[in-house]
Amino acid sequence: MGERVTFERFDEAWTERVLGKRGRKGIDAYLGVEATEFTAGRLVAGFEVTDELITMIGNMHGGCISALVDHVLGVVMYPIMPEGYWAATTEFKINLLAPVSGGRVEATAQVISMTRRLAVVRVDVENVTREDAGEQRRLVAVAQGTSTIVAPKGA
Amino acid sequence: MGERVTFERFDEAWTERVLGKRGRKGIDAYLGVEATEFTAGRLVAGFEVTDELITMIGNMHGGCISALVDHVLGVVMYPIMPEGYWAATTEFKINLLAPVSGGRVEATAQVISMTRRLAVVRVDVENVTREDAGEQRRLVAVAQGTSTIVAPKGA
Amino acid sequence: MGERVTFERFDEAWTERVLGKRGRKGIDAYLGVEATEFTAGRLVAGFEVTDELITMIGNMHGGCISALVDHVLGVVMYPIMPEGYWAATTEFKINLLAPVSGGRVEATAQVISMTRRLAVVRVDVENVTREDAGEQRRLVAVAQGTSTIVAPKGA
Amino acid sequence: MGERVTFERFDEAWTERVLGKRGRKGIDAYLGVEATEFTAGRLVAGFEVTDELITMIGNMHGGCISALVDHVLGVVMYPIMPEGYWAATTEFKINLLAPVSGGRVEATAQVISMTRRLAVVRVDVENVTREDAGEQRRLVAVAQGTSTIVAPKGA
Repeated sequence: MGERVTFERFDEAWTERVLGKRGRKGIDAYLGVEATEFTAGRLVAGFEVTDELITMIGNMHGGCISALVDHVLGVVMYPIMPEGYWAATTEFKINLLAPVSGGRVEATAQVISMTRRLAVVRVDVENVTREDAGEQRRLVAVAQGTSTIVAPKGA
Repeated sequence: MGERVTFERFDEAWTERVLGKRGRKGIDAYLGVEATEFTAGRLVAGFEVTDELITMIGNMHGGCISALVDHVLGVVMYPIMPEGYWAATTEFKINLLAPVSGGRVEATAQVISMTRRLAVVRVDVENVTREDAGEQRRLVAVAQGTSTIVAPKGA
Repeated sequence: MGERVTFERFDEAWTERVLGKRGRKGIDAYLGVEATEFTAGRLVAGFEVTDELITMIGNMHGGCISALVDHVLGVVMYPIMPEGYWAATTEFKINLLAPVSGGRVEATAQVISMTRRLAVVRVDVENVTREDAGEQRRLVAVAQGTSTIVAPKGA
Repeated sequence: MGERVTFERFDEAWTERVLGKRGRKGIDAYLGVEATEFTAGRLVAGFEVTDELITMIGNMHGGCISALVDHVLGVVMYPIMPEGYWAATTEFKINLLAPVSGGRVEATAQVISMTRRLAVVRVDVENVTREDAGEQRRLVAVAQGTSTIVAPKGA
């Protein structure tokens, strides 16, 4: 593969405000989403698959993964945009690969292209479980989408 | 446009079990998703945009719409599949068109193609608000995806 | 469904320059793409499934449909943008529903949302064949995508 | 990232029949698509951006990239399926990142998930140009899609 995107700006202080924190309300708070790694153009965030999230069939509702993907697609943008700008998930596509019934769900978002108006982001979602043999990671969804970059009024 | 899909089977009794009911747990229960119309290959379901769903920016988290889309993509399939079969959302793509800050969010899922293994579904998501002039409907997201049809073991 | 997009501008003269014309080179010329209907935000264009386009397996290569979708996603924008602006297909998603082995392939593109920067477009692709019972139309692909609207330099 | 897919079968002889060969007709022959690398679950294929493919605006028609993506999504499957099976591109999503005006276009398809019925594939498309500083590679499109695996009749 050739050269990938480089970022003109990276606000590390912003990442510290979100790492390890949970939202107080909204769907990300409901899921318990927490960011665990945040570098320029790359965010890892996930949540525990609690019993509350499991449907009658015994698996987690796929909508939890879709919501997580939507979430990381927006959040990954903040530290690499100029201050005051905001990002909105404009579109994405997701393939759900395998059911999830426990453990932890973790999304890794990677910005792969960025202009002044748009960024394209790929997301890998893994199910992390603890087994006798140690931590197991299984790819359960992949996504690709676009975040629109919006300048503050007057910029 | 030409002829669209016809359905060999439609279990109206199944639709009566879900119309107007809310889930007891899981992301659809959190959102308060309720089906309001259900005919062969077509489902209308939505939820009220409560204050809990609004983020600090003043809009509803896009993940709520993604989760709703994922939900209707699966549910729309049940009355048109043979008994005992189940449907899993395999993939979808969503374009988010406008922010939502109140009222009701309503998704209309329409099965546009169906084989023994797969169905392709389109979803329109509208924001329904009450204004002086009466009910206003605004298209806020469109989606397109695939449900995989899974036979029960032994079928 | 609620109110759909309305268009501030529609350059009918522009549509007359493309209706019934074929490109002289490029992939649309190779396929023989011709526009047959063009109204504000809606374009119908297609091509004949010649023997050249059929693979060894006896079906048309799906890439012909993908290329047609990409084509109409851009062209549908021109009469509804201010003069001098141009449109670029930024992203799209396609579901291929059935193989094509003859007749004509026809795409109908409909702009369903438009801002100053972006338009979201849905495309239905049908296979039109002549049979004893008359013309048959079969939905063979559906797509949904985004065109970016680019202002001329200095605008 | 965790463990990725492993393939039960890899027919290297099949890859030798396509490496460095061009189709005789169809859209891949028109584009001049040639496979240059083919290992289990991974295919590199591309074509030269000839003057024929350039539009009046000076760039290559995006449909050429869409058609290439559709093509590699199917071809990458053959050496990893049992003999006699065939693969059909069922759906894909593409983000076009940058215009192409010369050089070579090269797609790398990687199967990231495979069941008996479906495979999910990611594709990176690069524009390879020769400059004074040597070969330059620029990511110009990314895609993600599904190939349906079809058993021969009687299997």
